[in-house]
Amino acid sequence: RTDRERLWQALMEMAKIGATPKGGVNRQAFTDLDRLSRDLFIEWCRAEGCTIRIDAIGNIFARREGQESDSPAIMTGSHLDSQPTGGKFDGVYGVLAGLEVIRTLNQHDIRTRAPIEVVAWSNEEGCRFAPCMMGSGAFTGQLALEEMLARTDAENISVGDALEAIGYRGEDCVTPDHIKAYFECHIEQGPLLEDTGKTVGVVVGALGQKWFDLTLTGLEAHAGPTPMPLRRDAMVGAAEITQAVNRIANTHQPHGRGTVGVVNLHPGSRNVIPGQVMMTIDLRHFESETLTAMAEELHQVIQETSQRHGLAFELTPTADFLPEHFAESCVGAVRRAAEVIGCSHMDIVSGAGHDAIFMGRVTQAGMIFVPCENGISHNEIENAKASDLNDGCNVLLHAMLEQAGI
Amino acid sequence: RTDRERLWQALMEMAKIGATPKGGVNRQAFTDLDRLSRDLFIEWCRAEGCTIRIDAIGNIFARREGQESDSPAIMTGSHLDSQPTGGKFDGVYGVLAGLEVIRTLNQHDIRTRAPIEVVAWSNEEGCRFAPCMMGSGAFTGQLALEEMLARTDAENISVGDALEAIGYRGEDCVTPDHIKAYFECHIEQGPLLEDTGKTVGVVVGALGQKWFDLTLTGLEAHAGPTPMPLRRDAMVGAAEITQAVNRIANTHQPHGRGTVGVVNLHPGSRNVIPGQVMMTIDLRHFESETLTAMAEELHQVIQETSQRHGLAFELTPTADFLPEHFAESCVGAVRRAAEVIGCSHMDIVSGAGHDAIFMGRVTQAGMIFVPCENGISHNEIENAKASDLNDGCNVLLHAMLEQAGI
Ligand SMILES: NC(=O)NCCC(=O)O
Ligand SMILES: NC(=O)NCCC(=O)O
Repeated sequence: RTDRERLWQALMEMAKIGATPKGGVNRQAFTDLDRLSRDLFIEWCRAEGCTIRIDAIGNIFARREGQESDSPAIMTGSHLDSQPTGGKFDGVYGVLAGLEVIRTLNQHDIRTRAPIEVVAWSNEEGCRFAPCMMGSGAFTGQLALEEMLARTDAENISVGDALEAIGYRGEDCVTPDHIKAYFECHIEQGPLLEDTGKTVGVVVGALGQKWFDLTLTGLEAHAGPTPMPLRRDAMVGAAEITQAVNRIANTHQPHGRGTVGVVNLHPGSRNVIPGQVMMTIDLRHFESETLTAMAEELHQVIQETSQRHGLAFELTPTADFLPEHFAESCVGAVRRAAEVIGCSHMDIVSGAGHDAIFMGRVTQAGMIFVPCENGISHNEIENAKASDLNDGCNVLLHAMLEQAGI
Repeated sequence: RTDRERLWQALMEMAKIGATPKGGVNRQAFTDLDRLSRDLFIEWCRAEGCTIRIDAIGNIFARREGQESDSPAIMTGSHLDSQPTGGKFDGVYGVLAGLEVIRTLNQHDIRTRAPIEVVAWSNEEGCRFAPCMMGSGAFTGQLALEEMLARTDAENISVGDALEAIGYRGEDCVTPDHIKAYFECHIEQGPLLEDTGKTVGVVVGALGQKWFDLTLTGLEAHAGPTPMPLRRDAMVGAAEITQAVNRIANTHQPHGRGTVGVVNLHPGSRNVIPGQVMMTIDLRHFESETLTAMAEELHQVIQETSQRHGLAFELTPTADFLPEHFAESCVGAVRRAAEVIGCSHMDIVSGAGHDAIFMGRVTQAGMIFVPCENGISHNEIENAKASDLNDGCNVLLHAMLEQAGI
């Protein structure tokens, strides 16, 4: 069994790096604070006898040898970077749960057959440098390494230079070939576990995502003298499309999601009819065909709505991720582990993107969710219970043991 | 007859003060550029033999004596201040049309029975200092003078200090008692005259206005893991309310107007469900009871929508102007003048607020609209034809002559 106190202490120690006044952390990718958290992670891993490798995008791999050192590794991990106003658990929990597995194995002097590796992926959040899940994306070949190294932040600093500056542009060549299975612990970032009173989510897969930028262009005019029938009000169009996004997601339950998160009006004055609206649309579903159908329905609504209101529109896809169905071997290992340690669990689909999804494309992967308070994440008030975090970590230990063999 | 060229030259001369690269003007209230336009207006009026009075809020009254100097004056005018990206005609046309009337009377040596006054109202636009129509509002007692002098701009400069700084905090006590009738020429700022091919709009009144700030508060949450039925998406509520505003205005045609001009989302991130939306609503109608009913219907929709989506709401009225029905004496004078000079005309209701509306509360008032290109105003590309402007000015001359007597 993993050690609840030890795991919690590690989390609280790490949370000091980039701590914010409201109890969260600001530890964005490739900053000095990111470097400090990486240094501390490596120090802890070395103390447990692990060897460290760092690849060209700064992913850190800590390896605990197995009885059969040629045998492919069982890997776990997540990310140490955070949102600018992020919480103490998102990402870092998955990394330190991996460390806790190694500490527990060391404590009980258990040597697994396959090697165990814990990875800290670079830049999962994607807030300083887009896109998100950059480290696992480059590692799995889903994102092009050279292209990623050239990406720049708002100050025009490139990923490559930022990695250089913090001393984490590694030279180790690490490839997915040596991995047999990948597991990742993460807080749920949603309300389902808490609402149903379960401790562990057995993640069976993740929703596909299609993101769009939409610009509607009508005619800016004075709100008083312009009669209703002569208007080309971009906001009226945007409102209809927002409702359609909501309706489309609602008609594809339980897995449909539809969100309009950004709406910018031009000129944005009380008594001027908005001549232009820029909005974002985020559609998700677990079935690829349904997600495609949702996007097609959206496109049709946008066409009809624009025509009806005399608007021009420009629809640009900004992200397109296929749904992920995790390998039954890993999902089963997680489920069996939850049974073994006797904690309440339920199958769950991840609504958010995670490094495990990219890993699922190149090896077998699975995830373990634990509840977070009120389902809130990407927020300084993000919170989770020490006992839930430890239960999730225990499930990770047993799932990894099953896959690694003893 | 007024002089088309002289009027156009005066407009173009004035347009040099605060000229913007795109052909508009930026001459906000109580700035140095506003001072320059005031100085020039006074210089021109003095050259025509007018006496000048300036009141405590900086309104400028230029008086041409009549045969009966005790008899109440016939007044005309508008404003010299502009929007930050305003046009060359909005406001200034009404002031210079008044000057052109005086120049024409001087040229033909016509002495009216009643005195003629031309007024340049302070701060009609209200963009640097809220609210709009400040000068006429204070003059007519619709706005409290002391309160207006204390209003501050974004740099915390008060109206009183700004007036002092440009030397236009006057000491003359001017009251509405000495006025028999008020006329105002203005560009239409809408498309009706142009669409119907008429030169002059006989303004029979103005729409009442009810403005609101609405804040909807739901729950900020991750767009991926949060199932649709558990959301409290403030933007979905805002979209429904935007559509209701549109629908309510459309069911009260031809005079209903409904506009959502500002929509601000918090936190405004692609993959975060908006936890809060602040939006503005602008409702207008020509009938007071209908306007009240529209606002009541809106309130009900907001209540129902908020409840349905689990949102809290805060609805704050920010402006409330009754509809204005201009006095038949003035409306008739304008209509008869249009007939006399033989220009095509139609009755029209002003959708926008104007100084004439406040004047209509304390004396008889009327307005003359002329077309502006594509109905566009509050925009540097605002444009109008010299011939239309002169036709409107001729109508003004004859309406004023009828009221002043010769
Ligand atoms: N885990 C996570 O927050 N990923 C960000 C991408 C998403 O919106 O799913
Ligand atoms: N004339 C004008 O633009 N007034 C501003 C107030 C309004 O929106 O009606």
